Amino acid sequence: MTAQNSKASIIDGKAHAAKLKASIAAEAARLKAEHGLVPGLATILVGNDPASEVYVRNKNKTAESLGFKSVHHHLPADVSEAELLALVKALNADPSVHGILVQMPLPKHIREEAVLDTLDPAKDVDALTPYNAGLLLSGRAHLVSCTPMGVMMLLKETIGSIAGMEALVIGRSLLFGKPAAQLLLAANATVTMAHSRTKDLAEVCRRADILVAAIGKPEFVRGDWVKPGATVIDVGINRVDAGDGKSKLVGDVAYGEAAERAAHITPVPGGVGAMTIICLMRNTLIAAAALAGLPPLSL
Amino acid sequence: MTAQNSKASIIDGKAHAAKLKASIAAEAARLKAEHGLVPGLATILVGNDPASEVYVRNKNKTAESLGFKSVHHHLPADVSEAELLALVKALNADPSVHGILVQMPLPKHIREEAVLDTLDPAKDVDALTPYNAGLLLSGRAHLVSCTPMGVMMLLKETIGSIAGMEALVIGRSLLFGKPAAQLLLAANATVTMAHSRTKDLAEVCRRADILVAAIGKPEFVRGDWVKPGATVIDVGINRVDAGDGKSKLVGDVAYGEAAERAAHITPVPGGVGAMTIICLMRNTLIAAAALAGLPPLSL
Repeated sequence: MTAQNSKASIIDGKAHAAKLKASIAAEAARLKAEHGLVPGLATILVGNDPASEVYVRNKNKTAESLGFKSVHHHLPADVSEAELLALVKALNADPSVHGILVQMPLPKHIREEAVLDTLDPAKDVDALTPYNAGLLLSGRAHLVSCTPMGVMMLLKETIGSIAGMEALVIGRSLLFGKPAAQLLLAANATVTMAHSRTKDLAEVCRRADILVAAIGKPEFVRGDWVKPGATVIDVGINRVDAGDGKSKLVGDVAYGEAAERAAHITPVPGGVGAMTIICLMRNTLIAAAALAGLPPLSL
Repeated sequence: MTAQNSKASIIDGKAHAAKLKASIAAEAARLKAEHGLVPGLATILVGNDPASEVYVRNKNKTAESLGFKSVHHHLPADVSEAELLALVKALNADPSVHGILVQMPLPKHIREEAVLDTLDPAKDVDALTPYNAGLLLSGRAHLVSCTPMGVMMLLKETIGSIAGMEALVIGRSLLFGKPAAQLLLAANATVTMAHSRTKDLAEVCRRADILVAAIGKPEFVRGDWVKPGATVIDVGINRVDAGDGKSKLVGDVAYGEAAERAAHITPVPGGVGAMTIICLMRNTLIAAAALAGLPPLSL
């Protein structure tokens, strides 16, 4: 642990992501050479949200850069639920597709539940289907939600074993907070789940050896909420006014203040976010190997 | 809250269970009269563990006392996994069966995972299948594990809203600790999950407004671990030597000591345990109504 008042070491998500990407590329090359297996990722975007378009495009580009097959389906905002479900079913049945990503959120007239109950859990690379969420709760996780997985990798490389540590997750979404808490628990941390209804969040934060913030509120977690020597993982990505008509990205943690007390901290951007897309590629590769009946990969 | 040093009020699980049993009987009678629906519970016991035999017999007897159809299958300890799975499949397909309970633990040569992956989630009244565990994590719970459900009912009747309270669950099993934590979270408590690897458990306990112990260690949680005014829920049922060759049941909490500091506490026996079987009947009724396409019950 770093002594109080020293500057935290910065957890370089980009560097970790580049390293992981290299192992995925190597493993993909091996699977292709030995088994003729080319992982296939299919993305579905409904409507024209500009941020979602950027996210999906980056996913397809990253897949292609790894030699994966990448297919994108762009449906109009007024597509019917039945049409979307028919596409999901077709991709479920397509043997060249191993991962299916339906970009959320969906338009209001389409029930997310119906989509998740249709999606084949074996191809559910975002790990949002009930079956995959349940495997995680059961300690049998196969495909795990990408951002929580990225966080666990950063923690492992930064501090090694977290057994017995007090970990706090602020935010309880199905995409991040809930699976993150389960992964921290599986790694034998004592895990607290906090949220908008938590009383005296500052005090709850001060107990945490590992503080994970995923609330979507710019710089909400202040420096004096951080336990000296803690590891701070900032999952927030918030665009805020930077003056002069410009904007900038900040996390859910007041970085400058927190870095004065933390031992380790992720920056925004360049921290957790960098890991998410690579973990999606990792899931696609894992799904491809499993669907091909190959032994589990060690990635 | 009761002031420090006063005696805790005792949470009477038997009384709550009797009340719930009466509403289930009334609802079952209504479903039979209006829809000709008779809930059916099938139990499967493998081998001859005396404790399991008692548990299963009580489940069947309670079902019969409510006018449910009750079928018991007793298989020899050396039954093959394939034979057990064939029975589960037959019960999945039997329209007169709405709830299937496979008594755990199973002999070592049978994979629990294979049984849970075969069991129809719609009939999974112990809520152990990945799909039902995942629905719970997703905030879409349908059938919920019986003991955690019983605990939530006792908490609701005893203290009303628990939003913003600090809840602690000690123990992280799939049957109790993990679903209990999810239910407490869904009720807006700030939830900590502790276990055998937790450091300074006594101090972690002293933060808890709601302390839930499910660790299977007789009287492990001591009185001075309890925050004054807390609600203590003791899920443990341990048989210990009472001298003179006799035995007695005690919980995971040192009851006498804890009752000096808690505002409310469950006794053992007569606390949480009394609710479990009735919650199994509740799940069977809920499953029967859902399988018949009837609207959700309010029980």
